Amino acid sequence: MIGPRLLFGGDWNPEQWPPEVWAEDVRLMRAAGVNLATVGVFAWAALEPEPGRYTFGWLDTVLGLLHDGGIGVALATPTASPPPWLGHRHPDTLPQGPDGVRRHYGSRNHYCPSAPEYRRAALAVTEALAARYAHHPALRLWHIGNEFGTTCHCGHCAARFRDWLRARHGDLDALNEAWGTSVWSQRYSQWSEILPPVTVQYIGNPAQDLDYQRFGSDLLLGCFVAERDAVRAHNPAIPVTTNFMDFYRPVDGWRWAAEEDVVSLDTYPDPNDPGAAMRGAMSKDVMRSLAGGPWLLMEQSPGAASWRPVSTPKRPGLNRLWSLQAVARGADGVLHFQWRASRQGLERAHGALLPHAGEDSRVFREACALGSELASLSEVDGLLGTDVPADVAILLDWESWRAAELPHQPDAGFSYVQRLTEWYEPLWTANITCDFAHPAADLSRYRLVLAPNLYQVTPAVAANLTAYVASGGTFVLGPFSGVADADERVHIGGWPGLLMDLVGVRVEEHWPLPSGWAEWAEPRGAEVIGHARGGPLDGRPVVFRHGRAWYVGHTPEPEDLARLLARVCAEAGVRPVLADLPPGVEAVRRGRVVFLLHHAEGRAEIRVDP
Amino acid sequence: MIGPRLLFGGDWNPEQWPPEVWAEDVRLMRAAGVNLATVGVFAWAALEPEPGRYTFGWLDTVLGLLHDGGIGVALATPTASPPPWLGHRHPDTLPQGPDGVRRHYGSRNHYCPSAPEYRRAALAVTEALAARYAHHPALRLWHIGNEFGTTCHCGHCAARFRDWLRARHGDLDALNEAWGTSVWSQRYSQWSEILPPVTVQYIGNPAQDLDYQRFGSDLLLGCFVAERDAVRAHNPAIPVTTNFMDFYRPVDGWRWAAEEDVVSLDTYPDPNDPGAAMRGAMSKDVMRSLAGGPWLLMEQSPGAASWRPVSTPKRPGLNRLWSLQAVARGADGVLHFQWRASRQGLERAHGALLPHAGEDSRVFREACALGSELASLSEVDGLLGTDVPADVAILLDWESWRAAELPHQPDAGFSYVQRLTEWYEPLWTANITCDFAHPAADLSRYRLVLAPNLYQVTPAVAANLTAYVASGGTFVLGPFSGVADADERVHIGGWPGLLMDLVGVRVEEHWPLPSGWAEWAEPRGAEVIGHARGGPLDGRPVVFRHGRAWYVGHTPEPEDLARLLARVCAEAGVRPVLADLPPGVEAVRRGRVVFLLHHAEGRAEIRVDP
Amino acid sequence: MIGPRLLFGGDWNPEQWPPEVWAEDVRLMRAAGVNLATVGVFAWAALEPEPGRYTFGWLDTVLGLLHDGGIGVALATPTASPPPWLGHRHPDTLPQGPDGVRRHYGSRNHYCPSAPEYRRAALAVTEALAARYAHHPALRLWHIGNEFGTTCHCGHCAARFRDWLRARHGDLDALNEAWGTSVWSQRYSQWSEILPPVTVQYIGNPAQDLDYQRFGSDLLLGCFVAERDAVRAHNPAIPVTTNFMDFYRPVDGWRWAAEEDVVSLDTYPDPNDPGAAMRGAMSKDVMRSLAGGPWLLMEQSPGAASWRPVSTPKRPGLNRLWSLQAVARGADGVLHFQWRASRQGLERAHGALLPHAGEDSRVFREACALGSELASLSEVDGLLGTDVPADVAILLDWESWRAAELPHQPDAGFSYVQRLTEWYEPLWTANITCDFAHPAADLSRYRLVLAPNLYQVTPAVAANLTAYVASGGTFVLGPFSGVADADERVHIGGWPGLLMDLVGVRVEEHWPLPSGWAEWAEPRGAEVIGHARGGPLDGRPVVFRHGRAWYVGHTPEPEDLARLLARVCAEAGVRPVLADLPPGVEAVRRGRVVFLLHHAEGRAEIRVDP
Repeated sequence: MIGPRLLFGGDWNPEQWPPEVWAEDVRLMRAAGVNLATVGVFAWAALEPEPGRYTFGWLDTVLGLLHDGGIGVALATPTASPPPWLGHRHPDTLPQGPDGVRRHYGSRNHYCPSAPEYRRAALAVTEALAARYAHHPALRLWHIGNEFGTTCHCGHCAARFRDWLRARHGDLDALNEAWGTSVWSQRYSQWSEILPPVTVQYIGNPAQDLDYQRFGSDLLLGCFVAERDAVRAHNPAIPVTTNFMDFYRPVDGWRWAAEEDVVSLDTYPDPNDPGAAMRGAMSKDVMRSLAGGPWLLMEQSPGAASWRPVSTPKRPGLNRLWSLQAVARGADGVLHFQWRASRQGLERAHGALLPHAGEDSRVFREACALGSELASLSEVDGLLGTDVPADVAILLDWESWRAAELPHQPDAGFSYVQRLTEWYEPLWTANITCDFAHPAADLSRYRLVLAPNLYQVTPAVAANLTAYVASGGTFVLGPFSGVADADERVHIGGWPGLLMDLVGVRVEEHWPLPSGWAEWAEPRGAEVIGHARGGPLDGRPVVFRHGRAWYVGHTPEPEDLARLLARVCAEAGVRPVLADLPPGVEAVRRGRVVFLLHHAEGRAEIRVDP
Repeated sequence: MIGPRLLFGGDWNPEQWPPEVWAEDVRLMRAAGVNLATVGVFAWAALEPEPGRYTFGWLDTVLGLLHDGGIGVALATPTASPPPWLGHRHPDTLPQGPDGVRRHYGSRNHYCPSAPEYRRAALAVTEALAARYAHHPALRLWHIGNEFGTTCHCGHCAARFRDWLRARHGDLDALNEAWGTSVWSQRYSQWSEILPPVTVQYIGNPAQDLDYQRFGSDLLLGCFVAERDAVRAHNPAIPVTTNFMDFYRPVDGWRWAAEEDVVSLDTYPDPNDPGAAMRGAMSKDVMRSLAGGPWLLMEQSPGAASWRPVSTPKRPGLNRLWSLQAVARGADGVLHFQWRASRQGLERAHGALLPHAGEDSRVFREACALGSELASLSEVDGLLGTDVPADVAILLDWESWRAAELPHQPDAGFSYVQRLTEWYEPLWTANITCDFAHPAADLSRYRLVLAPNLYQVTPAVAANLTAYVASGGTFVLGPFSGVADADERVHIGGWPGLLMDLVGVRVEEHWPLPSGWAEWAEPRGAEVIGHARGGPLDGRPVVFRHGRAWYVGHTPEPEDLARLLARVCAEAGVRPVLADLPPGVEAVRRGRVVFLLHHAEGRAEIRVDP
Repeated sequence: MIGPRLLFGGDWNPEQWPPEVWAEDVRLMRAAGVNLATVGVFAWAALEPEPGRYTFGWLDTVLGLLHDGGIGVALATPTASPPPWLGHRHPDTLPQGPDGVRRHYGSRNHYCPSAPEYRRAALAVTEALAARYAHHPALRLWHIGNEFGTTCHCGHCAARFRDWLRARHGDLDALNEAWGTSVWSQRYSQWSEILPPVTVQYIGNPAQDLDYQRFGSDLLLGCFVAERDAVRAHNPAIPVTTNFMDFYRPVDGWRWAAEEDVVSLDTYPDPNDPGAAMRGAMSKDVMRSLAGGPWLLMEQSPGAASWRPVSTPKRPGLNRLWSLQAVARGADGVLHFQWRASRQGLERAHGALLPHAGEDSRVFREACALGSELASLSEVDGLLGTDVPADVAILLDWESWRAAELPHQPDAGFSYVQRLTEWYEPLWTANITCDFAHPAADLSRYRLVLAPNLYQVTPAVAANLTAYVASGGTFVLGPFSGVADADERVHIGGWPGLLMDLVGVRVEEHWPLPSGWAEWAEPRGAEVIGHARGGPLDGRPVVFRHGRAWYVGHTPEPEDLARLLARVCAEAGVRPVLADLPPGVEAVRRGRVVFLLHHAEGRAEIRVDP
């Protein structure tokens, strides 16, 4: 449980406004029922306008006003956006693209995570903030940086990458072996030759690319951990988070979540997307799974997301609906970007709880209603802090994700997240709740485990899945799985490689087609359940069952996949939260509460026998 | 009146041909009725083959030949394309992209407008030209540079930009306030930190972008003015122009036209575009409005425009038709790019009055006929030098144009010129003549003023429009208006901001949709005239009337907009030049003449009672 | 004849595998009937792991194993991919893009062909290889580099380009004249000003572009020749090749083929392309024509081509079918990329004779069957080493290809190869065999010569074609021909310029339309055969006949073109290999053998009277 009530509020950037607006803001926050404000995310230049000169006075005032208003604070370290003076004095703190072009200040995220001077300056401002506010009575949560995800290709990064590679591979011979540098005469004769993936004549080494993605995630995690430790040292009682973006490949959620006290999400489904409710549910289930329990919705827009080419606002009621979906799926708080709409800057067209139109507006009235409703829900017994029961787990693996989408895989359009979504959607439609799980995690509490794709299979993962099925679990594996090891060496002898015995199938050839994925496969013990229809593989076996292990060796039509998964669920004893609901009605059980969320237009009538 | 006759001719580049062709050219010009040749546009290397060594002999000959043939000269300063020796000796005269990559010589427009050495060299050759030819008897017009529009991001430009910013904003605090640098921690602590909008990690500051666009226009205008003053000093009797491109955002037509003696246009409608005649009329009306009277069609192609991916020539008669459209809409001359088709270089496939096929060709025969027809028209009483009466003005504002199309506006596809075109088209179709006007201009002579978009509204503009309506004018305002001030600060409290009282409407939310623009609006005194049909705003009010001020808060279907504007015109007493003409027939009154231009295929019969 | 048998095999990269795999590979090669393995293509780093330290031991073993297994060797110079140490120690050996960005090692083709240090190092390793293996009993063929085609824009290249230009144009005045530098003030005042086509503000000089394309081909040819001479010096009996890519503009096939002992092709038709069989036939006919007799299929994939966005494998039987097509069209060998599928690197998803699945696989079984079939075919009398008779030649001209596709031609979508394909297709469908020929070649042995496009016509070419028709040949010329001379100077007075008298037609205007190419033309002696239908040129003449010379002044509908070419063939006495075959059956005569290849699905029944 993150707090004693469902949190409600959003990012507040008082440094963008004159002080006379601050009191007005706190008054309106109270009117809306806001109980948490995120402060300071981009305030570095306001806190340290010149190197080493700190100006905390305004922040003292702001935190005092909030505290006096009974509003808690998520205090951010402002390290996602250094002031211009840093890049101006130390150009090597600015990140470089693969082409060597520096990305300058004047935007955000313009830092090289490896640059010593950036690391020093970021820790210094973090330390100063923590020293001053770690025991502030309004402080509820530390918010480290913002949406970590910057990539750089400079010399500092090259040096750190080499250290990371030494730790992973040991000596240069092992690295040459792991990267397959015998292909295309790429063998490195000394460490200093090794570079990040920079601009090349044709296309680069996939193992180097994969390692640089891992390195990039670990490098940023190092930045997070350093700041986390700095603030924690001042007051270990204050929990620490950083805000994830939904389905963001550069940051390995499992590794990061393990370092956080609170897992939090920024999510912006597109109101114009007919699948937005389903996609939103999926992101939220991922967060609950990463957290292993309650989590925090850190950012959503009450209106439009201004980075979208056509930034359509949310229709009346939609922000409430998606907020309740978050609570239903395990969130202990619903925060927004942002409290008061900015007048200036790149996000001036972004939605806000208090829009440009002011308090006399549809949007602000809905904000007040939502604040009030969340306050009531906080009182409901068996909701806040409780978990969401699920009998199904979908395997989510950053390793397979990165590797399956490397350049020059058989199908450049193969999207790992799309594969997961295709399998999640029929379960969501059927109101069967899913967790997400790491493939090496303990899966014993699930009746059913789905792996829409598991491109990379290590011996440990193979053993885990084999033991899971052996002890009674049902397992379904999707196509393009078991292809390569952790260094992107393709498995020899047939696929899904280390899982061939488990599913009783041997795939000889991957057969991507413009119309979808297919495979040339033969049963090796499995029963053939389905055949390809049409195309060059017409009539060949594509769906297999080997006891409680299934293999789906293609991308089926949605209705075929729904039918298959319904059968598997039924056989595994997996049941929906509520059956036979009208279309568009989502049912989720959390703790002692069942949420019914109506996403379609018009009225839906539901009869529930208690 | 630019000259005593309608001007006819085009660009002539004798430096591309051996001298024996020159006499032949003059003979054929005379045969075609050419009375003005534009000379020297890209002749810098021919005039100054090495630094400081001028070779005017050939130009003496050329101007002599023209004069002897009775043909006037528009003499160009050749500064749009410096010789390779300049960039080779002074690489800092070459422009830089936002990524820092130099754009080299070997093309054209390869100059940094801020580079001292470019400015020096350009003025020197201009001065030398003027000293030699300012009193040449053939000289009719100075043509400064060519199609100004180069942008650079180098250190010279950064320095000049800072000077420009100091002049606009005063001190650094004011700049920080105007640019909203409190957003994303962008506060500048010293002037030297400020850069042009260069490559950044995410996306840059919109106010910086807006100021750099303004600076870019002013910077080039400074180049123009410097050369203009240099040539004027030698003979103030010779008028000065530079050629505009149609609907070109980087150059603010109102500010530039004020510095010119003659306003001139380069225009290349696409023969494959069914809307080309309408679009051409619009460009020409803009030029007449910028000029405040007669103007000059400086460039059109008698055939194809070779920069077009598919450069389709003009069908027989089309160049005559569009030439007469120019005269009808206020041009006192019709010139072409170019006289003789180039054999070499990037424009070798461009149309010419004298095509590659030579004088025995359809195109040359049509050129001769046009020359003859323009000569006859010169004799028509009450045409040459007269104005085109219009009761309607459409507001054209570079400020709104630039700002409405900045990155991360609500709709990335929002095109200012498309909005203007949508409103211009039904009036053109109805043969209602329009001027274009600056929003702060005196509008009292118009019965009707249309503002398809007025994103940026300053207090002066608001006062001007309010006074216009108060004194009997009718005003129609389109969507996404009154949003921001001159520094791109969004108006708080509802839109169209300073025009809310005038139109009696308050817009709470912009609501872009993939299918078009919409808004969540409420009348505040206005009568509701139309409602949204379909979509998330179905049934909400979108068209309003507040006395003589109208507000159209969406992008209507073309037929709805045509109906609305027809009603507004009728109520405002605006009448077509001629009513009930067959489709495809354009009618324009100029001076004492009514032009009837038939753009459709086949015959049209028209009965006019004199 | 390249060898005493049809060659069968592929690229083998033993350096990617541990030694214990090598013997297994040779065993399986023998099982599959492989008689030639290409070795060493990317082995530079394996052969010279540090500067000057050669490690030939492993290659000794590999060649020994092959020789003991009775398998011949195509030994490659490994110079297409230098080891990282070269670029690391000598960054100037890395190629530069037009924007000045270096392309680093970590991929392949990362060399500047002009860099002295690259040239030195490449020749040194070549020399060392040749010294050691030129008399190895397994050696059958030298394979120089790989798929030459790298372009660079660095200072080394600029210097060599100037030398090349001096040789071509003589002095600077001649270069200025040839490049038309009087256009846009581009006149060069000293040689040092001349650059490769680098990043410019607008768009560059077409003659410079054209010369740089020629220079690029010649520069790489110089690399080839230097290595060829180095290996030849050690044993002139071993033939030398390098592998062409099909329809690759940067390398002028005619100039290169003249320097080779064996012409060889890498070809990868897309199994998803319905026109793949036709396109494959065309590539193979080009190779036979470049070779002037038998040639070698150096690379095709037994399965997928992994660089394709969707890399669909070949269906069962398809690799056999296309292999036999190669033999039918003159190949004396069928090799593959590659023998054993790579586990690592960018090509890990590429097809191989021995796929990841191993020897127990459809693909390997088909490889064995193909090996066996080719062995049988080697015994057929009058096949191996024989030629393919053809009465028709299609003119293929790198000069016209490069020039017709330069920037700012009238139609940016004009594709030279598409034009050739449109004309080749109906002949292929009719089973009329075609050669390809250089426009200045002796054409006397052909009844019919087709020039789908001949943009560039020199006096020698015009004389050659005129003489050909005068001595009884039939000639058909396609649109956009005779436009320019060798320096991209447009012909004045009408097109097809120097061929106007031959075809009896004068084209006044090129008239590209979004729907296709058209021209405004008049007969000048020719008979009008066809007229345009629809569009702005409706009813104008477009197809002409002038005795035995025809002119087709547009891009006809496919059925119209087929009908026209059928008529021309009939009148010229050109006959198909076999008439009235079912659709999808390809017939080719080679030596004393007629091949019948069935590309369609299902069965086809054919009755042949012997």
